[in-house]
Amino acid sequence: MPNLLAGKVGIISGALDERSIAWKVAQKAYAEGARFVLTNAPLAMRMGEINKLSEECEAPIIPADATSMDDLEKLFSGTQEHFGGKIDFVLHSIGMSTNIRKGKHYGELNYEWFQKTLDVSALSLHRMLAVAEKQDAFNEWGSVVALSYIAAQRAFLDYTDMSQAKAVLESIARSYGQRLGKLKKVRVNTISQSPTKTSAGTGISGFDAFYEYAERMSPLGNAPAEACADYCVSLFSDLTRYVTMQNLMHDGGFSTTGISEEMVELLTNSKA
Amino acid sequence: MPNLLAGKVGIISGALDERSIAWKVAQKAYAEGARFVLTNAPLAMRMGEINKLSEECEAPIIPADATSMDDLEKLFSGTQEHFGGKIDFVLHSIGMSTNIRKGKHYGELNYEWFQKTLDVSALSLHRMLAVAEKQDAFNEWGSVVALSYIAAQRAFLDYTDMSQAKAVLESIARSYGQRLGKLKKVRVNTISQSPTKTSAGTGISGFDAFYEYAERMSPLGNAPAEACADYCVSLFSDLTRYVTMQNLMHDGGFSTTGISEEMVELLTNSKA
Amino acid sequence: MPNLLAGKVGIISGALDERSIAWKVAQKAYAEGARFVLTNAPLAMRMGEINKLSEECEAPIIPADATSMDDLEKLFSGTQEHFGGKIDFVLHSIGMSTNIRKGKHYGELNYEWFQKTLDVSALSLHRMLAVAEKQDAFNEWGSVVALSYIAAQRAFLDYTDMSQAKAVLESIARSYGQRLGKLKKVRVNTISQSPTKTSAGTGISGFDAFYEYAERMSPLGNAPAEACADYCVSLFSDLTRYVTMQNLMHDGGFSTTGISEEMVELLTNSKA
Amino acid sequence: MPNLLAGKVGIISGALDERSIAWKVAQKAYAEGARFVLTNAPLAMRMGEINKLSEECEAPIIPADATSMDDLEKLFSGTQEHFGGKIDFVLHSIGMSTNIRKGKHYGELNYEWFQKTLDVSALSLHRMLAVAEKQDAFNEWGSVVALSYIAAQRAFLDYTDMSQAKAVLESIARSYGQRLGKLKKVRVNTISQSPTKTSAGTGISGFDAFYEYAERMSPLGNAPAEACADYCVSLFSDLTRYVTMQNLMHDGGFSTTGISEEMVELLTNSKA
Repeated sequence: MPNLLAGKVGIISGALDERSIAWKVAQKAYAEGARFVLTNAPLAMRMGEINKLSEECEAPIIPADATSMDDLEKLFSGTQEHFGGKIDFVLHSIGMSTNIRKGKHYGELNYEWFQKTLDVSALSLHRMLAVAEKQDAFNEWGSVVALSYIAAQRAFLDYTDMSQAKAVLESIARSYGQRLGKLKKVRVNTISQSPTKTSAGTGISGFDAFYEYAERMSPLGNAPAEACADYCVSLFSDLTRYVTMQNLMHDGGFSTTGISEEMVELLTNSKA
Repeated sequence: MPNLLAGKVGIISGALDERSIAWKVAQKAYAEGARFVLTNAPLAMRMGEINKLSEECEAPIIPADATSMDDLEKLFSGTQEHFGGKIDFVLHSIGMSTNIRKGKHYGELNYEWFQKTLDVSALSLHRMLAVAEKQDAFNEWGSVVALSYIAAQRAFLDYTDMSQAKAVLESIARSYGQRLGKLKKVRVNTISQSPTKTSAGTGISGFDAFYEYAERMSPLGNAPAEACADYCVSLFSDLTRYVTMQNLMHDGGFSTTGISEEMVELLTNSKA
Repeated sequence: MPNLLAGKVGIISGALDERSIAWKVAQKAYAEGARFVLTNAPLAMRMGEINKLSEECEAPIIPADATSMDDLEKLFSGTQEHFGGKIDFVLHSIGMSTNIRKGKHYGELNYEWFQKTLDVSALSLHRMLAVAEKQDAFNEWGSVVALSYIAAQRAFLDYTDMSQAKAVLESIARSYGQRLGKLKKVRVNTISQSPTKTSAGTGISGFDAFYEYAERMSPLGNAPAEACADYCVSLFSDLTRYVTMQNLMHDGGFSTTGISEEMVELLTNSKA
Repeated sequence: MPNLLAGKVGIISGALDERSIAWKVAQKAYAEGARFVLTNAPLAMRMGEINKLSEECEAPIIPADATSMDDLEKLFSGTQEHFGGKIDFVLHSIGMSTNIRKGKHYGELNYEWFQKTLDVSALSLHRMLAVAEKQDAFNEWGSVVALSYIAAQRAFLDYTDMSQAKAVLESIARSYGQRLGKLKKVRVNTISQSPTKTSAGTGISGFDAFYEYAERMSPLGNAPAEACADYCVSLFSDLTRYVTMQNLMHDGGFSTTGISEEMVELLTNSKA
């Protein structure tokens, strides 16, 4: 049986409940031999069922507010202490927009919340990597993956300021990827995942239409959370050492499909 | 003589001194028959020589802090009052990074300043457009241009958090471009300009190397500020009505050059 | 009145009938003071009404098979002789796929026809530029525009081998743009135009669905042929001297739209 | 020990000698439990040492001219017969340009050779997939990988018509990826690999400068052939089932690097 991540140690953020992509990444990484710390915001942890996952994966939990440098320092030092060594991989799966929660349309965004969206959902990646750099926490050939969405490239109704957050996230992956690549041969990439029926995803107004549209446009259909977890495993493994500073589409072909037969039929029928 | 912008009214931000791209946009737009208000941050205005430009172009000045909704509301309402009608074009040429000014490298960014960089350099575009929308300030087929840089797509040493600011700026252009396109047929684009020897540009550590590298890589050489102003004029004119939500490279071919003869020679000689 | 192209001399290919984009480019360029030669394949000319356009624009016709170096040499030398000087602009608007005409689906392409599609629709641009280079036919700061389609980036049903032809066309624009940029400061770009109801466009099976889909997705709607002609004029003019080796989307925002309200409604209704 | 490709059957083209990427793909795939047929052009086989590889990997050889439908039909039917079942993966590693071999610069390409370059290096992918479709040769969730180069996106001196061939190759991957995705859930991707010191690569004039430049620009350095083989394995495996119609940069970060410290130093020193 494959044991792709044997001996590797990491940090997995963002596992809220069984539908979370991060939850499935934890399960798959564990199955492939990785050991890791689970982390989430203190508030998110109270709502979630992360303790179940922690037991299942023999993974300690270190809560951390991703906008707090203190918390992140404890997260990275705590992880290293726990495993008695440096870190090989990090999953960044953190996103939150009060503008979306409050149903603000794009023309009436609250700017304080906009800043908060960017801070929580994107600058948090910079913070994590800056802490890791300062603590010299990475082993060479480590791998960082952050979850993104195609709203970073194309305008999506109702995704509002999360579009900008994902653009920043992907940009930080490039900038810090350059830096960590030179310093420690660590790679940093984002996965641009299909719309996924997680607790986070389904909270977005219009999510069902996004989902349905992408499903009909993608030759393979929308990529499920399990497949995203598999892809993360491949990116944490040594099979992908020279892939860095990339935004990797994991979308069943959505991003490079111009039009699909399903859409042609839908449009043709709608005119009848 | 061409009179491409005859009858058009706009707002031009960011003219600090004669080297500013915005300064040259003002001169060219004026020469093409446009009328406009000049704006800049109160502080920047004290340092600049904007009064000279104001006289030369018969353009009133309305100072505005681009992060203040009050100021921006006065800017857009004042412009409409002055000209007795709606607005046809806006130039966004606003950027500031305290992290760059203070010489912080990418691993040690101050996050308060990072947020400020994003707010001043990128969210300000959203603010301007939200105010314009609220005031219904645009004529149909209006045109918004914001100045960007290829650091939004590729990692540049020393450009630090401005890379993320430009990524947000371009993302807002897409999102708000979708919204304003539907509402008012207004287009929103960014121009990704060659490194340019403005007061802003030359303040960046390593700027000379950026400039020199781009000069040697670009088949046409770096695009000068005057040419950028010409390009802005074309984008404000009715010749480009259906170009929207695009990031337009104005770089002498830099972005699509893999390697140039000059670089081949440089590399070959450096080994000798 | 604007006279943006005063004194400029060029070659415009591909004007078949009044619906052709090239036809409208000729009219607009003429109105802006340009003079030019019209060209088309001998066969296309017999079917078309190019003589009307020739009279209207005072433009001589020099027929040329775009895959024949002899014909192209006569075209470029004939144009220079006629105007007594070098050339400032070229419009490449040439495309033909027997696989499309014969209704072949993508899995059963005829490879001889495939090669012919590439030769006529894409290599013809290389041929034209190679002839121009050999004859030193360009003035400095000349401009070449070729018409493309987003099928070069995304998969479109029914567009079959023309997708590959457009990919080659855009690639040649980059490669030859690098070369001509260095040699003569000539720029080479492609315009990626919305689906357009020309004789060429409407011959494609599924064209109506392409058109309708793009219309509903684009915030400004599909760009009409007239607007494309305006855009060509801006690219031939001196306002865009440093734009080169680019593929420029002229599509009302289609390419950067993730999903539109119209599509959301259509999908929502289709499930009811 | 990992056994990622256990039970999978495929076709690997392009293994010429030990330096070939395809050679290393064969070795890695074999080590991961895959079984496969090796193929190459009859001429290439005579020059190569493919028999050694064949023994090492217990892989039969079926020679095929990649532009011959007859040969390809025998290749795909022979592979299925040999293994008694359908195929799970294909590596396309085929490229040849007589224009490069003969040292033609981009302005003087021979068009017959240009067509041949496209046919051998790119249309061959279409041919292979069309044969596979016709024979219904793929298992569901099969994976096709073709090797590409960034010259498809950016202009490279001396790479001449191979730039266009790679643009076509990547375009076919998108188009046929859409088709095979719907028909059989088969994914089709290209890997855009760093310049690699293979027999093919080093034959290109200016290759050393390409290599050196990319080495200095890429934070991780150029990706070696072995790493590319690892990446192929990940793409053939079930970890990447929903990645399709993508061009995947495997380049140590080259493609998203704007400028590197090494280049800054080189440029700074060259002025001293």
